[in-house]
Amino acid sequence: MKLPGIGEKTAIRLAFFVLDLPEEDVQQFANALLDVKSKLRQCEICGNITEQNPCRICADETRDQTKIMVVEESKDVMAFEEINGYHGLYHVLGGVLSPMDGVGPEELNLKSLITRLQKQDQVTEVILALNSTPEGESTAMYLKKLIKPAGIKVSRLATGLAVGSDIEYASSLTLKRAVEGRTEL
Amino acid sequence: MKLPGIGEKTAIRLAFFVLDLPEEDVQQFANALLDVKSKLRQCEICGNITEQNPCRICADETRDQTKIMVVEESKDVMAFEEINGYHGLYHVLGGVLSPMDGVGPEELNLKSLITRLQKQDQVTEVILALNSTPEGESTAMYLKKLIKPAGIKVSRLATGLAVGSDIEYASSLTLKRAVEGRTEL
Repeated sequence: MKLPGIGEKTAIRLAFFVLDLPEEDVQQFANALLDVKSKLRQCEICGNITEQNPCRICADETRDQTKIMVVEESKDVMAFEEINGYHGLYHVLGGVLSPMDGVGPEELNLKSLITRLQKQDQVTEVILALNSTPEGESTAMYLKKLIKPAGIKVSRLATGLAVGSDIEYASSLTLKRAVEGRTEL
Repeated sequence: MKLPGIGEKTAIRLAFFVLDLPEEDVQQFANALLDVKSKLRQCEICGNITEQNPCRICADETRDQTKIMVVEESKDVMAFEEINGYHGLYHVLGGVLSPMDGVGPEELNLKSLITRLQKQDQVTEVILALNSTPEGESTAMYLKKLIKPAGIKVSRLATGLAVGSDIEYASSLTLKRAVEGRTEL
């Protein structure tokens, strides 16, 4: 078994650390690992990883039910929850379209998004928060074609300068998009 | 004398390289250095570094005379010329307001911007392309207050995700701005 970012030396260090732990702690650790697999599942509505089903966000009626933000992975939900500025719902695709890697619409959590939009007719805007990679861009275009005809507004995150960043270190393409997407003050 | 990014070892390597050069090449190199100081000056209109006065961009009547992009430094002009997507004019401030460092409006190329806006009455938009640092932000607010009352549109570069970047690596504040500044597809 290989854990990401842990090479042979660290693995040996961790193994000796576990050897020195009291029996009880090791038991707890093992149980925690098993719990991850047994208790965590995908929310049946949004596809986010959750202990309860539907997840805490889908179940929360105080959230803005008119907006669904489409993200690639569960960890993106965590990132957007941290900004403390988005109060709508989410939908986790589980990846992006990538014909080269054999990922088509069937491999993604897409059908459930369409069903969801048909059921939850209070949704007025779908926000595409996909990575700004070629695959993310083409997935965004695909989703736009799928959703817009239903009369739902489709938007995407702004492309531009990062907060705190210097123009000097931005790529030409980012600068171009930042000029095109400029906002009035 | 210290050149940026050149430490003792590199300096010694460069010195020996110069020793090995033919007399003629060294003469040329020395002249080039002197030329930088003697021939380059600030454009009297936009403040950009230039050999001719006014500079090539200010003198070019085919450029869009309705837009002025305000940047901090001459190297920012180079960055925006490389995107091949902006055809308006520039104004180089020579820095940003920074009371902590004793840089007030008088220290910047600001008065000439105001004079310029009064003279060139075809200008309809001033684009603030300042770094997204605290000093850049407060300079942007200062300029907005100065220029907007004259009935000229003031805009700023989009803040958001860099092209090709992952949501995972963006700061919370950048994500927040990217959500706020989202654009319809």
